[in-house]
Amino acid sequence: MIEKELRNLLSGIKEGKVSIDDAVDMLEDLPFQDIGFAKIDHHRELRCGQGEVIFCEGKTPEQVASIAKVILSKDDTLLGTRASLEHYDAVKTEFPDAHYDKEARCIVLQKNSVELKGNVLVITAGTSDIPVAAEAKVTAETLGAKVQLINDVGVAGLHRLLRYGEEIRKANVIVVAAGMEGALASVVGGLSARPVIGVPTSVGYGAGLKGFAPLLTMLNSCAAGVAVVNIDNGFGAGYMAAMINSLALEDNSK
Amino acid sequence: MIEKELRNLLSGIKEGKVSIDDAVDMLEDLPFQDIGFAKIDHHRELRCGQGEVIFCEGKTPEQVASIAKVILSKDDTLLGTRASLEHYDAVKTEFPDAHYDKEARCIVLQKNSVELKGNVLVITAGTSDIPVAAEAKVTAETLGAKVQLINDVGVAGLHRLLRYGEEIRKANVIVVAAGMEGALASVVGGLSARPVIGVPTSVGYGAGLKGFAPLLTMLNSCAAGVAVVNIDNGFGAGYMAAMINSLALEDNSK
Amino acid sequence: MIEKELRNLLSGIKEGKVSIDDAVDMLEDLPFQDIGFAKIDHHRELRCGQGEVIFCEGKTPEQVASIAKVILSKDDTLLGTRASLEHYDAVKTEFPDAHYDKEARCIVLQKNSVELKGNVLVITAGTSDIPVAAEAKVTAETLGAKVQLINDVGVAGLHRLLRYGEEIRKANVIVVAAGMEGALASVVGGLSARPVIGVPTSVGYGAGLKGFAPLLTMLNSCAAGVAVVNIDNGFGAGYMAAMINSLALEDNSK
Amino acid sequence: MIEKELRNLLSGIKEGKVSIDDAVDMLEDLPFQDIGFAKIDHHRELRCGQGEVIFCEGKTPEQVASIAKVILSKDDTLLGTRASLEHYDAVKTEFPDAHYDKEARCIVLQKNSVELKGNVLVITAGTSDIPVAAEAKVTAETLGAKVQLINDVGVAGLHRLLRYGEEIRKANVIVVAAGMEGALASVVGGLSARPVIGVPTSVGYGAGLKGFAPLLTMLNSCAAGVAVVNIDNGFGAGYMAAMINSLALEDNSK
Amino acid sequence: MIEKELRNLLSGIKEGKVSIDDAVDMLEDLPFQDIGFAKIDHHRELRCGQGEVIFCEGKTPEQVASIAKVILSKDDTLLGTRASLEHYDAVKTEFPDAHYDKEARCIVLQKNSVELKGNVLVITAGTSDIPVAAEAKVTAETLGAKVQLINDVGVAGLHRLLRYGEEIRKANVIVVAAGMEGALASVVGGLSARPVIGVPTSVGYGAGLKGFAPLLTMLNSCAAGVAVVNIDNGFGAGYMAAMINSLALEDNSK
Amino acid sequence: MIEKELRNLLSGIKEGKVSIDDAVDMLEDLPFQDIGFAKIDHHRELRCGQGEVIFCEGKTPEQVASIAKVILSKDDTLLGTRASLEHYDAVKTEFPDAHYDKEARCIVLQKNSVELKGNVLVITAGTSDIPVAAEAKVTAETLGAKVQLINDVGVAGLHRLLRYGEEIRKANVIVVAAGMEGALASVVGGLSARPVIGVPTSVGYGAGLKGFAPLLTMLNSCAAGVAVVNIDNGFGAGYMAAMINSLALEDNSK
Amino acid sequence: MIEKELRNLLSGIKEGKVSIDDAVDMLEDLPFQDIGFAKIDHHRELRCGQGEVIFCEGKTPEQVASIAKVILSKDDTLLGTRASLEHYDAVKTEFPDAHYDKEARCIVLQKNSVELKGNVLVITAGTSDIPVAAEAKVTAETLGAKVQLINDVGVAGLHRLLRYGEEIRKANVIVVAAGMEGALASVVGGLSARPVIGVPTSVGYGAGLKGFAPLLTMLNSCAAGVAVVNIDNGFGAGYMAAMINSLALEDNSK
Amino acid sequence: MIEKELRNLLSGIKEGKVSIDDAVDMLEDLPFQDIGFAKIDHHRELRCGQGEVIFCEGKTPEQVASIAKVILSKDDTLLGTRASLEHYDAVKTEFPDAHYDKEARCIVLQKNSVELKGNVLVITAGTSDIPVAAEAKVTAETLGAKVQLINDVGVAGLHRLLRYGEEIRKANVIVVAAGMEGALASVVGGLSARPVIGVPTSVGYGAGLKGFAPLLTMLNSCAAGVAVVNIDNGFGAGYMAAMINSLALEDNSK
Repeated sequence: MIEKELRNLLSGIKEGKVSIDDAVDMLEDLPFQDIGFAKIDHHRELRCGQGEVIFCEGKTPEQVASIAKVILSKDDTLLGTRASLEHYDAVKTEFPDAHYDKEARCIVLQKNSVELKGNVLVITAGTSDIPVAAEAKVTAETLGAKVQLINDVGVAGLHRLLRYGEEIRKANVIVVAAGMEGALASVVGGLSARPVIGVPTSVGYGAGLKGFAPLLTMLNSCAAGVAVVNIDNGFGAGYMAAMINSLALEDNSK
Repeated sequence: MIEKELRNLLSGIKEGKVSIDDAVDMLEDLPFQDIGFAKIDHHRELRCGQGEVIFCEGKTPEQVASIAKVILSKDDTLLGTRASLEHYDAVKTEFPDAHYDKEARCIVLQKNSVELKGNVLVITAGTSDIPVAAEAKVTAETLGAKVQLINDVGVAGLHRLLRYGEEIRKANVIVVAAGMEGALASVVGGLSARPVIGVPTSVGYGAGLKGFAPLLTMLNSCAAGVAVVNIDNGFGAGYMAAMINSLALEDNSK
Repeated sequence: MIEKELRNLLSGIKEGKVSIDDAVDMLEDLPFQDIGFAKIDHHRELRCGQGEVIFCEGKTPEQVASIAKVILSKDDTLLGTRASLEHYDAVKTEFPDAHYDKEARCIVLQKNSVELKGNVLVITAGTSDIPVAAEAKVTAETLGAKVQLINDVGVAGLHRLLRYGEEIRKANVIVVAAGMEGALASVVGGLSARPVIGVPTSVGYGAGLKGFAPLLTMLNSCAAGVAVVNIDNGFGAGYMAAMINSLALEDNSK
Repeated sequence: MIEKELRNLLSGIKEGKVSIDDAVDMLEDLPFQDIGFAKIDHHRELRCGQGEVIFCEGKTPEQVASIAKVILSKDDTLLGTRASLEHYDAVKTEFPDAHYDKEARCIVLQKNSVELKGNVLVITAGTSDIPVAAEAKVTAETLGAKVQLINDVGVAGLHRLLRYGEEIRKANVIVVAAGMEGALASVVGGLSARPVIGVPTSVGYGAGLKGFAPLLTMLNSCAAGVAVVNIDNGFGAGYMAAMINSLALEDNSK
Repeated sequence: MIEKELRNLLSGIKEGKVSIDDAVDMLEDLPFQDIGFAKIDHHRELRCGQGEVIFCEGKTPEQVASIAKVILSKDDTLLGTRASLEHYDAVKTEFPDAHYDKEARCIVLQKNSVELKGNVLVITAGTSDIPVAAEAKVTAETLGAKVQLINDVGVAGLHRLLRYGEEIRKANVIVVAAGMEGALASVVGGLSARPVIGVPTSVGYGAGLKGFAPLLTMLNSCAAGVAVVNIDNGFGAGYMAAMINSLALEDNSK
Repeated sequence: MIEKELRNLLSGIKEGKVSIDDAVDMLEDLPFQDIGFAKIDHHRELRCGQGEVIFCEGKTPEQVASIAKVILSKDDTLLGTRASLEHYDAVKTEFPDAHYDKEARCIVLQKNSVELKGNVLVITAGTSDIPVAAEAKVTAETLGAKVQLINDVGVAGLHRLLRYGEEIRKANVIVVAAGMEGALASVVGGLSARPVIGVPTSVGYGAGLKGFAPLLTMLNSCAAGVAVVNIDNGFGAGYMAAMINSLALEDNSK
Repeated sequence: MIEKELRNLLSGIKEGKVSIDDAVDMLEDLPFQDIGFAKIDHHRELRCGQGEVIFCEGKTPEQVASIAKVILSKDDTLLGTRASLEHYDAVKTEFPDAHYDKEARCIVLQKNSVELKGNVLVITAGTSDIPVAAEAKVTAETLGAKVQLINDVGVAGLHRLLRYGEEIRKANVIVVAAGMEGALASVVGGLSARPVIGVPTSVGYGAGLKGFAPLLTMLNSCAAGVAVVNIDNGFGAGYMAAMINSLALEDNSK
Repeated sequence: MIEKELRNLLSGIKEGKVSIDDAVDMLEDLPFQDIGFAKIDHHRELRCGQGEVIFCEGKTPEQVASIAKVILSKDDTLLGTRASLEHYDAVKTEFPDAHYDKEARCIVLQKNSVELKGNVLVITAGTSDIPVAAEAKVTAETLGAKVQLINDVGVAGLHRLLRYGEEIRKANVIVVAAGMEGALASVVGGLSARPVIGVPTSVGYGAGLKGFAPLLTMLNSCAAGVAVVNIDNGFGAGYMAAMINSLALEDNSK
């Protein structure tokens, strides 16, 4: 397609329909528009870059609101993560339809209702991991994925987890949010034939090293099929899960 | 299905076809067979557990050969990673059809030829990262994925990478193997709308901390859609990529 | 016993007293109840999982109070660790008999008075280690252990410690809470023929690394018979000590 | 007892049977013999100090042999850990009855046969953890404990572990040796009402940090009742387990 | 020059114009004045030592104001970094011409207007890195460099960066301020033939380790021509860049 | 220039001299040739990317020799760092004029003699730092810089360093190679008004952490004007110094 | 002496002046009184243990005041470190003569005036290190040492330090307090033939790692004669310096 | 003195005895000779800089021998640390009187016999710490100190240490060499009123972190009067101890 556009442009020059000056201008941006085109070609609702999602922490409510305006001028969907109520209030003034998920600390606005599809499972080891899991859930849903959340099934009480064997086996992809020792990712990895995205949380104290202990645990998982994102990065886990879920929904078999 | 089997068993008891002693024996294993069943249900050639793949490092050639025998008595595929020539020689004596991939340091034997499907892209930053990438490639291929390998496109010469824009956009999933500063994963993540599996390598020295520097780099990727496996864990990256590639090939849209 | 129950169920099916539908329901939970049963079989007042103890830090007073209600609906004992006065006030409103140990920062309620048995010794290196030691003491007592607390006998003044040689020799198990350099655990380990549980505390500054220095000290103890729990984990040390004290009280010699 | 001896000595002075010079000599050693006495009072075969066990690594075969001679001149039992075949050969020349456990890398000699008692369970996550587990087993047996070893039941294949539920519930104390992510300790801790001694192993690579990752995992165990010893410290784990097993066998209930 | 002064002094003694007492006094300071002279010889407005720049953080407004007075009694330029509004207010009372750059958190006063020369480029990966970049810009400008600032061109959207290829190629020296994974320094290093000064920022969370992750990334840059300053050290980066820019402006070719 | 070439191409199309197919092929490479052109525009002997320099460590002699052939087919200069004698022998077979600097462990070949210009000073703290300094020197010389090396002037004997005050003040840029505590970089930074490139070395032991201690020292330099490269990265320091030296030689003042 | 007392006691028994019961009581404390006696034997004003000095941080004003009462009931000197004004107020209420050194954050009370002797030099690298240096000074003075404090002579401006060559050479012992890169300790160590006590401070940011960078610097000092205490431990440095100064004042040459 | 020399020089100029050219040459070195003078003024046998002691590790035997020649051409004493037998052989060829201490791995030659004075005590925790302790002992003796070595008195068997209470109390300064958990330094610090120099050793494994654990332990010593040198730095500890011992022998009381 990019080639077709390029040939059209060059034919325009040959035929005298396009001036050389205009062509130079258009060609200068070519490689970058090329990158953009490819992404639009996948009919994605959100662009793949993180730039389109607002990481609100450390920004003022005013900054968040003005970035939101820019995004919504071209996109149908707004996602603001690590947002406080103050951030939400500023956005809401401009966009009264914006919604705030308190647990996930996310601001969401979707101009058109989207049918959620597929099967993303988000699991937490303990109740303190829920905010991170909620952020993953909201992120994946904003990207069109159907998400189920199962809380508080850490390995200290294995029977709680095993009760959800069917959910684990049926999911397209599983996000495991766990702090303390983070063992849940390995255990779920051993129970599932689908990709597991581990998101270590900073839940714990002392030798938990603010999430570094579960991070190392997940990276060293003795079960294959586990990959890891940054500590407390519910957004990243949800994003990755939604990408994988999308692949599962596409028909790429041809 | 498991429920159907259970009902059959219970009907057998009711009807006197199954003794209570036999039923007790069968039920004791039930939850575990259940776990096993689900996995067989996916018609996978390899079981999802790492137990079926031999991590040869630190095992004697004899140990590897005897584990290989056990695996091949029930499976059609053998994969031995981090294998030396000595390991291979021991396996070859028993299984002359076994193949050794020197670069990947892998022993592979597939009794039946398998058609490789889908589109997994493996990219390395430098030539020293190739062994890790090769392990990822062999692993994913053993699990049925079609894999393309692009070497030496690190960010120090960005033009080398940008030449492969189309390959990057078309892949179902991308494995990025990079040592030193590991920046390639973020850059590829920013160019692709598909999942990127970062595998940091121990290539580098000094502040590279034997791979810890690129590991941290990848975990902190400013591009979303990047998840990470352990340092030098080509097997884990290839396994994860093959899982995701499989999802892309399935028709889960119903 | 679990086998006996299973045989009863199967006999019930055989004899037509239990429907297959009911049996399927009951069997689905079997492996998990099995795990639970075994624990009840030890006549323990508290279940072995941490789920039954409330780690209050990071929970709202309301959350703590509602979890307390669930626990006390089936158990006779409530233990809430790292509890603030606000947490206590919320619990007290529901359960006026609940007690608050300010030093240990624990909420305790025991419906029936329990005779404390055995001999757990808790030793601190300095006065700043007392809160951690107090948490260990309250935890062990809640689990039925008789506990003696000796404070401020750090190795800078060895004569203070040596004065308690008899207490050290007579204890079933010793908890040593120490910050700064944490040397006390090794020294006590060398004086005692019984297990020593080291609990490093975050007392100290600079190269104390918030408790990592005494943690490493205790892990490298030149005296055998010392095992270690997480930094500031008085609960974990007290729990472990109570478990060992229980074993000492049982008659397992047959 | 020590008081009785002291009174005898003082009476001897009063009655003129003991000279003041002799009394001074005897009293100067008093506090140390006192410490020694208390330990002998427990009728232990080995003294509680690590001095009686030879850590062979870094010692010459001759040094090990000569330390062995000193130990066996007063004790009935010799234990040498981290011993090479060369160490063993040197000891065997002097003591032909000495036995070498190749897997545990231990030299053992027990002059009198000892009936092993109690129930110590040693579990490994993978086959590479066996040397550490074997050292724990030999150590505990040398101290009189009956030990059962279950290998290769890591959390990647949970069904392998769950098959041993009964062994886990019946043990007095459990040693869990695990490398990589070390999750097994938490999982076993959640299944057992008895103390679990975690011994992280250096098995793994990259982010395993030579055993630091499983060490952190075990320290952060979400299951209570888990305490930890140094990386690869099979001796320490076995020693601690034997101490706890001894307590379980004693009748301390009075 | 210093030699010339020395010869003048010695001639003065020989000729009796200078007393030996006076000469001793002058010679005692010689080596230090020597150091000072050399620096003045470069006609620099600011002395090379950091002592002349006020690091305001941790100082009271009064302390900053009084140090400012001392500096401005001999120099024409004042630079205060990490300054709060309170610091500024105190300085402004004394020196009403002092200017406060809120984004850079810098107080600046230049008695004589200085023509900015050369070409220093400051690039940020994201908007959160701007304060550090602004500090670099203000510092370099205070030292006489002409500075261009390009914001928010991180590697997640490579096309944003590539648009500035010409600016990158034309700069004498480039400062790259980046947090999170810090990959921008390597990428810019690969695009430029001029020195790149990487300044990692503490922007990020979790495995970002408060800036340590981008610090390691930059130190391990696979592109040559990248050197690094401390985390968040915009001052240091700007100072270094100004030094290099000065060299580019001098005519040292003879 | 790139624009000029583009206009030529487009005119060629307009005039029918260039076919659209050929134009498409040429335009596809445009952005990358653009990047390349800019670098050639600086008339540099070596390309700015690290790809042109061979990091020999971990490559076989044959690999190094064949990469050398590719480089020398288009460039006049070859630089191979961290080269062994075996690497050199393989290169020498193909290129008898290649030179081996044993101390620097570098292979160098320059087809045309180059006049070294400018003034780069390389200083070492101790004799053990010389190999790293020698690598910096050879690298900078290969890039055309005149280099002076001063050895063994560490801060333990400050008088040794102060003797070289004039050399320090006259250099365009100074490389400081120091292990152990690495204090020399700060001290030299305080003595000089020119950029200092610190290269920490892995010389030292224990708390030197294989070069991490001097790395941290240099990053925290209290003297401004110090930037740092990776541990033992003599190549990187020499490359950076040569870049800065080149700037000093250019006449950029217009 | 202790032997003499023992002989007196035993003679008392022999002669019937001391009952065996009383002797047993006295002998039980013997080894500890022995330790105590030895210390009194050195006629020291303060006991050598840290117990006699109050580390106020983390204690309530009431706690500090009551510990002060106990200490002053037997000692002539009170030293409270890391004390706030609140702590001081509480102590002052009881002991109106107590003095508060705001910079050092120390409470001091000496009942009898003490002549300060010897020559302890305390040097700081920057003004931010002064609080730590002041704590060292107050501590050493409380222990009887004459102390001189030289501030702000860090290595960035070496001439400031060299001006104090004579003070450095004349001191019995030198305390160097430095943050950031901590190079001052090595430099002073190279200038002095007397012991240098390095006290790294937490002054700095980023890669300063809250004082860990200067700590490592000082431990790796290339100059011999430097030993180090904990980060910010002005008390420890002053205590050590006073001990060494005392030795210099004693006449131990016989 | 330096002033006197300076006045002589200036008078020489005035009187025409010294030419201005000669005076300039002499004055240029003045400040450095000044530093040198001061040290000679203490009539020390060895200069205070580490340059006079040969750290042999990493040097060839030939290099060591030639440095030895330079040193012995002006000094009466040679000390080579971390020396192998090969180093010794090379030195012995030139200086047949050179002595090799195998345990300390030191080469020593003293042209004139020196009477050892004072009282330095060196204590080790275990037999594996002896090499480090021996290096400390040889170093201190070479510097003129009388040294007593007490081995294997680690805190696991406290009675072994307490037996040496008198030696501990009588020493001028104590060096404590300890690996594993390094607790011995704190314990000795608590028993002594004299300075303790802790030298952590790399003895241990796993969480011992190659000596970092005992290093942290000693830095966090709860007993005051403990300062620390680098891991395994027996030379540094012995040097510091000899410096302190010298002070104790001098009569500085006037």
